[in-house]
Amino acid sequence: MTNERRDFIKKTSLAGIGAAIAVPSIASADSKKTFRWKMTNCYGAGAPFYSTGPGSASYFCKRVEELTDGRLRIKHYPAGELIPAMEGFDAVSKGTIEMNWGNSFFWAGKTFAAQYFTAVPFGMNFQGTNAWLQFGGGQELWDEVYKPFNVIGLAAGNTGVQMTGWFKKEIKDVKDLDGLRMRVPGLAGKVLEQLGVSVKLLPGGEIFPALERGVIDAAEFVGPFQDRRMGFQKAAKFYYTTGWGEPSNTTECLINKDAWATLPKDIQAIVKTVAAECNLMGLSWSEANNSEALEDLVKNQGVEAKTLPDSVIEKLRELTFVTYAKLTANDPLVKKVHESYFAFKAMHDDWQNKSEEVVMTKLSS
Amino acid sequence: MTNERRDFIKKTSLAGIGAAIAVPSIASADSKKTFRWKMTNCYGAGAPFYSTGPGSASYFCKRVEELTDGRLRIKHYPAGELIPAMEGFDAVSKGTIEMNWGNSFFWAGKTFAAQYFTAVPFGMNFQGTNAWLQFGGGQELWDEVYKPFNVIGLAAGNTGVQMTGWFKKEIKDVKDLDGLRMRVPGLAGKVLEQLGVSVKLLPGGEIFPALERGVIDAAEFVGPFQDRRMGFQKAAKFYYTTGWGEPSNTTECLINKDAWATLPKDIQAIVKTVAAECNLMGLSWSEANNSEALEDLVKNQGVEAKTLPDSVIEKLRELTFVTYAKLTANDPLVKKVHESYFAFKAMHDDWQNKSEEVVMTKLSS
Repeated sequence: MTNERRDFIKKTSLAGIGAAIAVPSIASADSKKTFRWKMTNCYGAGAPFYSTGPGSASYFCKRVEELTDGRLRIKHYPAGELIPAMEGFDAVSKGTIEMNWGNSFFWAGKTFAAQYFTAVPFGMNFQGTNAWLQFGGGQELWDEVYKPFNVIGLAAGNTGVQMTGWFKKEIKDVKDLDGLRMRVPGLAGKVLEQLGVSVKLLPGGEIFPALERGVIDAAEFVGPFQDRRMGFQKAAKFYYTTGWGEPSNTTECLINKDAWATLPKDIQAIVKTVAAECNLMGLSWSEANNSEALEDLVKNQGVEAKTLPDSVIEKLRELTFVTYAKLTANDPLVKKVHESYFAFKAMHDDWQNKSEEVVMTKLSS
Repeated sequence: MTNERRDFIKKTSLAGIGAAIAVPSIASADSKKTFRWKMTNCYGAGAPFYSTGPGSASYFCKRVEELTDGRLRIKHYPAGELIPAMEGFDAVSKGTIEMNWGNSFFWAGKTFAAQYFTAVPFGMNFQGTNAWLQFGGGQELWDEVYKPFNVIGLAAGNTGVQMTGWFKKEIKDVKDLDGLRMRVPGLAGKVLEQLGVSVKLLPGGEIFPALERGVIDAAEFVGPFQDRRMGFQKAAKFYYTTGWGEPSNTTECLINKDAWATLPKDIQAIVKTVAAECNLMGLSWSEANNSEALEDLVKNQGVEAKTLPDSVIEKLRELTFVTYAKLTANDPLVKKVHESYFAFKAMHDDWQNKSEEVVMTKLSS
């Protein structure tokens, strides 16, 4: 097992390096050519982190223009401005639009494998996710999953740990979830349904009024900074911070492969590097903003920030893995992605338990 | 306090964005100019992470050449090939060399403030460090500290958590440190001396023979991947993983300011972005490699990976902060950096205790 793992790291590391440090292109006719691209977004105008602010789609486009000295100009269209919010994947796949900004798990209806490149319930945090993507075979699997769609996905941001969500009443036991009406999309919703939660799929703007008027009893969104902007603290006081559903959440920059092939090598390298810069910058911005926002919510706005009871966590874990077993059973590629992800996680957990976890539990004040 | 903190984040965030997304330069005469630069390195040829491999100095130089389509070519000289290992700062400061790769804490003899931009005993991990540098005022302070030297420092890598080190005998109590001869440089060494440790400053290549022959009883180096290459596991079996001395460790790309000013805006943006890519890539490579190496050391090489006893951690913490008080007392700029760092840490710890720590303690297998 250990030797296999070592080989695995070696092979994928070398593959990664080879791809990344390809010999610079010799200046060609192409190097003077300019490109005008369009990027759509799953998120609307003014959404911090996703459409505005450091590391966001608008930052990415400005930065690519700056690094290419204007040779690649990407016009950014927040959701709804050119096409509806969730039509970016098909538009990029067809090539009517060159790029889309969002999260790969929005495309889980096309293949459940897309889940693993955004957020994995009971999965890895930022460190583990990026180590897997870059040096554990994750990016190669992402390429394989997206090949039939003629697109490439790049990691271009990370919110860090997302919260379980806002609850009007305290959760003391698994039974307290039974009958709860909760806004919670995706895989976390599928798991919670098995505990009797009535899952409501509401767009961002409709969550606060629904929570305030009692149409729903609980809501999951992102983290302290984004959640505070929505005003959830005025409608629910119990904030469960246990990030079981999204221990990290990767932003996706989606690119049409034919359009990609027309770019000179130096511009391709710039696009990839700016995506990496946005990945780190987005995480750092989230960490700084969430730190400030959580302190404010707890100290000034009467919010109780709590972890879920262990009994609830254990039940969620059990049901999550039952759900994975069903969703991976009939698709060999999904199974392959799942197994690669969790094999890497097992190895990384052992290291992390002895490094980052010790820093947090024994060294922090 | 909370409102002040909020303003602090807002101001530094906006400053950061302003600096980062400056309007792209209009193509000028400069945009066709080519540059030939030299980069020295604090580490020798073949040092993984620092001089070779993903995110290292050699990767950085190749990547800059690729993104600039050959307009900026940086020739990389590992330690000793052009100048001795630790003369990079002065050479870059004088402008005889444009860049140096290493760690800012090597320059702590010039100003103790340099310590805070690499690794801080009882300080922050990767997430906190980068949030402080990018959005907590850290980079601005780094610029201020380096201004008199005519240089700029950029974060360009991170090893993640580094280990306490290798010990021939178990450490059960503070008394077990008394009289120990240990290779441990920097601030951690100053703290350990106060517990009776006899600190030995040995270059990397001399550590293994000294440990094997019993000239020293213990040695601190980096982490599992780099340490295993040195063979320490063949000379000492107790591996203390508690990263109190370096909860994260930032790689520095040092740049002469006059040389920097000659670069067109697009090339400056490329250099900064490649440094950010190396920062993330270095961390990911460390995480992947350390995971594999620690598993191998424990399962196949008879190493005992242990955390320090709580009583030892508490004594180290106490003495570390006594040491900080002495080192910051007589220099207002050092004090300002120290206070900025630990104020940000206090706020970030509260968030991290409720997010990443929960992921590690309650969600990981």
